[in-house]
Amino acid sequence: MLFRQLFDTESSTYTYLLADRPGGEALIIDPVAEHLDAYTRLFDELDLNLVVALDTHTHADHVTATGPLADRTGARLAAGERCRAECVTEKLREGERLEVGGVRLEAIYTPGHTDDSYCYRMDDRVFTGDTLLIRGTGRTDFQNGDARAAYDSLFSKLLKLPDQLSVYPAHDYKGWTVSTIGEERAHNPRLQVKSADEYAELMGSLNLPYPKKIDVAVPANLKCGRSGQGANRSRLEGAPTDHYGAT
Amino acid sequence: MLFRQLFDTESSTYTYLLADRPGGEALIIDPVAEHLDAYTRLFDELDLNLVVALDTHTHADHVTATGPLADRTGARLAAGERCRAECVTEKLREGERLEVGGVRLEAIYTPGHTDDSYCYRMDDRVFTGDTLLIRGTGRTDFQNGDARAAYDSLFSKLLKLPDQLSVYPAHDYKGWTVSTIGEERAHNPRLQVKSADEYAELMGSLNLPYPKKIDVAVPANLKCGRSGQGANRSRLEGAPTDHYGAT
Repeated sequence: MLFRQLFDTESSTYTYLLADRPGGEALIIDPVAEHLDAYTRLFDELDLNLVVALDTHTHADHVTATGPLADRTGARLAAGERCRAECVTEKLREGERLEVGGVRLEAIYTPGHTDDSYCYRMDDRVFTGDTLLIRGTGRTDFQNGDARAAYDSLFSKLLKLPDQLSVYPAHDYKGWTVSTIGEERAHNPRLQVKSADEYAELMGSLNLPYPKKIDVAVPANLKCGRSGQGANRSRLEGAPTDHYGAT
Repeated sequence: MLFRQLFDTESSTYTYLLADRPGGEALIIDPVAEHLDAYTRLFDELDLNLVVALDTHTHADHVTATGPLADRTGARLAAGERCRAECVTEKLREGERLEVGGVRLEAIYTPGHTDDSYCYRMDDRVFTGDTLLIRGTGRTDFQNGDARAAYDSLFSKLLKLPDQLSVYPAHDYKGWTVSTIGEERAHNPRLQVKSADEYAELMGSLNLPYPKKIDVAVPANLKCGRSGQGANRSRLEGAPTDHYGAT
């Protein structure tokens, strides 16, 4: 399998490129607008035919590259069925499978960070979006976020997966690239709570700043990043901020 | 196998943690001083016993954590035999193997970026230090760097390895995490030259700035990062700089 984890240093976003082999059909998860040219160059270099561009949820901290990638490559636009973006043509229900070449993903509906957050499981790994980060979890205070729903998604869905499954999140702010379900169950400080109430109290106490790109990023992402002006305006100066107050 | 790629956002350094299994013996490559506590916490969480701390070369852009890690864990300090640091007790010759648990590395002497640069090959991957970066190569204008030696190391050693071998460099400045030998042969702009002279001309034309941390980092690294003051002074403000003018 061809697997590439790509990092956007501005928003600390991880993008994933998947294909069963160089020369085959490919899928991209959570691509970032500013790297559009780098992605298409990489597809050319690896002789990949991009057939699906997928977002795990409507991002608030960066503009997606899914729409422009679809325009360049003919890829289908995919997301979970709760996604409100009308430009997304392939909306995946809980348990539904997406197959690209030999790569098979299964959608897991994991509301809480947003109400349109999905994780995607492969055989030996799970792409956890902003639902489960490495030693952290996604904030739950905007875009219909709900700490109790997040607790259920984390404890009743993700932590029921096998311990050895690799965890590939949509962000990291500390230089970590991968974890496992077992490792997060044991060592993620946000997952040591005993109840949904306790988790809601924890998340309610974070006092996180208003996300500085949300007013640009969300409207742009509801158009699959096709509003070029939004993409250009989405960059702010300075070092990456921890969008999640991940501990 | 347990394999972790860890990123230092300040110096854009990749550190690699290797073990045959959680609970076993581990090796770390190119650890960065500022993450000493994070590394030791991770060893505890994964129940790893660090037995070797290895630097690919004497770094000029960050202070190594090898010495303090050895002090905390009892790990042996390893590097290539040309390394001048007297604190390094295990000096590996060209072709020599290092075995930790079930992990086996073979040293490849690759002078050019510095005269003490080594790469380390495992079965399916090679840790290329600053000799070969993703779509770039290490600069050759300090620490006895030599563009013609670098050309030989790249073309007569690294590019002779199998195409499908994964390339894990010591730095990346653009968010790339991995490549392959075949991909770099075909698409690395620095590797499209036809001769050592042409490579030397290319490297001589880069006009790179004087490395801002070199006067602190090199003396500290010749003490395996045990000069705490050096480690503290090694941090400069601002975003990561491209230490290599990697194209």
